[in-house]
Amino acid sequence: MNQSLFMAQAISLAQRAKGKTCPNPCVGAVITAGDEIIGQGYHQAYGQSHAEVEAITDARTTGCDLSQCTLYVTLEPCNHTGKTPPCTKAILEAGIKNVVIGTKDPNENVSGGGAAFLSQSGVHVTCGIEEQKCLDLIADFNTWQKTSRAYLYLKMASTLDGRIATRSGHSQWVTSDISRKSVHELRSKVGAVIVGGNTFYQDNPRLNCRTADFQKQPLAIIVTSKLPSPDSDFYLIRERAQETIFWTDQKISESKQAQRLKDIGCEVTGLNKTLSGLDLEQGLTLLRQKKNIYYALCEGGGKLSLSFLEAKLADEIWHFIAMKILGDNQAIPVFQGRTPQTMDKSFDLRLSESKTMGNDLLLKLFPKIATVN
Amino acid sequence: MNQSLFMAQAISLAQRAKGKTCPNPCVGAVITAGDEIIGQGYHQAYGQSHAEVEAITDARTTGCDLSQCTLYVTLEPCNHTGKTPPCTKAILEAGIKNVVIGTKDPNENVSGGGAAFLSQSGVHVTCGIEEQKCLDLIADFNTWQKTSRAYLYLKMASTLDGRIATRSGHSQWVTSDISRKSVHELRSKVGAVIVGGNTFYQDNPRLNCRTADFQKQPLAIIVTSKLPSPDSDFYLIRERAQETIFWTDQKISESKQAQRLKDIGCEVTGLNKTLSGLDLEQGLTLLRQKKNIYYALCEGGGKLSLSFLEAKLADEIWHFIAMKILGDNQAIPVFQGRTPQTMDKSFDLRLSESKTMGNDLLLKLFPKIATVN
Repeated sequence: MNQSLFMAQAISLAQRAKGKTCPNPCVGAVITAGDEIIGQGYHQAYGQSHAEVEAITDARTTGCDLSQCTLYVTLEPCNHTGKTPPCTKAILEAGIKNVVIGTKDPNENVSGGGAAFLSQSGVHVTCGIEEQKCLDLIADFNTWQKTSRAYLYLKMASTLDGRIATRSGHSQWVTSDISRKSVHELRSKVGAVIVGGNTFYQDNPRLNCRTADFQKQPLAIIVTSKLPSPDSDFYLIRERAQETIFWTDQKISESKQAQRLKDIGCEVTGLNKTLSGLDLEQGLTLLRQKKNIYYALCEGGGKLSLSFLEAKLADEIWHFIAMKILGDNQAIPVFQGRTPQTMDKSFDLRLSESKTMGNDLLLKLFPKIATVN
Repeated sequence: MNQSLFMAQAISLAQRAKGKTCPNPCVGAVITAGDEIIGQGYHQAYGQSHAEVEAITDARTTGCDLSQCTLYVTLEPCNHTGKTPPCTKAILEAGIKNVVIGTKDPNENVSGGGAAFLSQSGVHVTCGIEEQKCLDLIADFNTWQKTSRAYLYLKMASTLDGRIATRSGHSQWVTSDISRKSVHELRSKVGAVIVGGNTFYQDNPRLNCRTADFQKQPLAIIVTSKLPSPDSDFYLIRERAQETIFWTDQKISESKQAQRLKDIGCEVTGLNKTLSGLDLEQGLTLLRQKKNIYYALCEGGGKLSLSFLEAKLADEIWHFIAMKILGDNQAIPVFQGRTPQTMDKSFDLRLSESKTMGNDLLLKLFPKIATVN
């Protein structure tokens, strides 16, 4: 019996619903009889039944005696009645005597409740199997619980030597087809794609999702102190004005140029100023509070990305590395703007997962300090 | 039956002898009965028995009927008598009827010979299982066959944004303990460690192997147009003069300063000049021809590394990436000196393997074009 392998399968099930469960966490569960998985399930969407219940229902179809089985679940089962009855009740009713939990619930009102209740009811409970992976799986939920803002993905794509374009700005393409496709898949899961003004003016991006499988285009957000003309020829202005938002300072947001952009359907939002620039947290909070957006994606450039990182707002970093070397210190760097003198002043991340994407590597990273409790 | 898994085990066996078989290739073999491995072996050192023979000897101890078994071997069995009798003969004598080969022998005199002979003798032969990995395993052998020079490892270590030190040159430490330890393990397998003059003057490196397990310290080679004084306080001069070689141009190698360095035991080797600098291939050839060194390791800096890459002399690249961001375009870059204007002018590598080393990632890369036949 390999607990880690079964938990890995539960994690993999949970990930299928990423983007569909908010404000609930993604949760996956498997039920095993000996070395065999006889039931599996995951929380498919907000309001629908929980992973444990799905897995129990699935396992019941096999006719196995569930009292001899083990339930693996990525997150501590809930012990309260929400949209659905408590999962602890379902587990006890199914007669399951062995429960393996990936991680306790980071929600302080819930934490420990489900596991303790099951233990008190005579169930053998094991906690903390593949705990870091199970925590990473619900990093979004953790942000939603602790803040009022949208969860922020930060996407970067660079060469092996940390460049996003040549010295002349040429960037087509750094990464492979398959990497670029996976960015579009990520766009299909978020409510907004955010870029800095330089990226907007230099790349003239569409920021839309160009895969078949999406429900609604993400909003396009440009963080800039310089608003474009509503007559300009940018794709976002011409084709997606009603889906485009400018984040700028209060004063600029009340300017004539701002009004003209609003007249063609754009939004211009004035954010507070902070010592280091605009209050990006306010922006992410507005997205969640006013637009019900739970995920946003920043796609650069290097200055804006660093601002999100420094403000501790980058919840999850996806860094695509192409196996290419430009070897030119005047090529455009993936990050700039800091001036550390010693290595201990570096900005540290934690590698959660690395994945081959064609000849690229996708690194999924989290801020190094981000742990629960 | 999973052919790839069995071949992976054969590859893993072969790797145990990396550095000990030259000028022979590393080869590993397993023998399976059904889904079970009943014999394994690898070519342990030059002159010793081949992997196939080791695996057959091992399998025989089980008493299994080898005519019902399959032999997996990373490289096509030899069909000629060298230091040992041909492996094809050993396979036929053992009565093995099924042979799975990772890759054909890149040696043109041998290529196809062993597989064809086995087929003609009634053995069922399958070729090309995990072929790229089996080719990567013998990239060194391939270089030795096709050239007269030492095989060159190129080691790099950078932050996620491609920096090897802060703007002030501070570099302790970019990578984790475990990464640095693995560099010392690599040093224990090579005959020479090569650095550029800047690295020598700025870092004052020892370039020795500081793990318990090594037979002989690698030579230290400095590529520079500026020779140090024999009275200077560099570790290499003070502690390892007899193991230190300077690669410089012919004229400088005949200078008084060169003679003074020779007087304290250093070697000063004059290399030919090429359009882009010194003839590094000549240097690597001298290592093999004059010193019987089959592996060399370049540890930077960025300029020398790029010279080896551009001259197509970097056979295998080990790039350690620390999950850190400096975010400063004035921090020291891992590579510099090229001026590509468009992305298609990048220097492309092929990712062979990636491996977690603490919180770092070790990427093993090969030049993209390097394929056999």
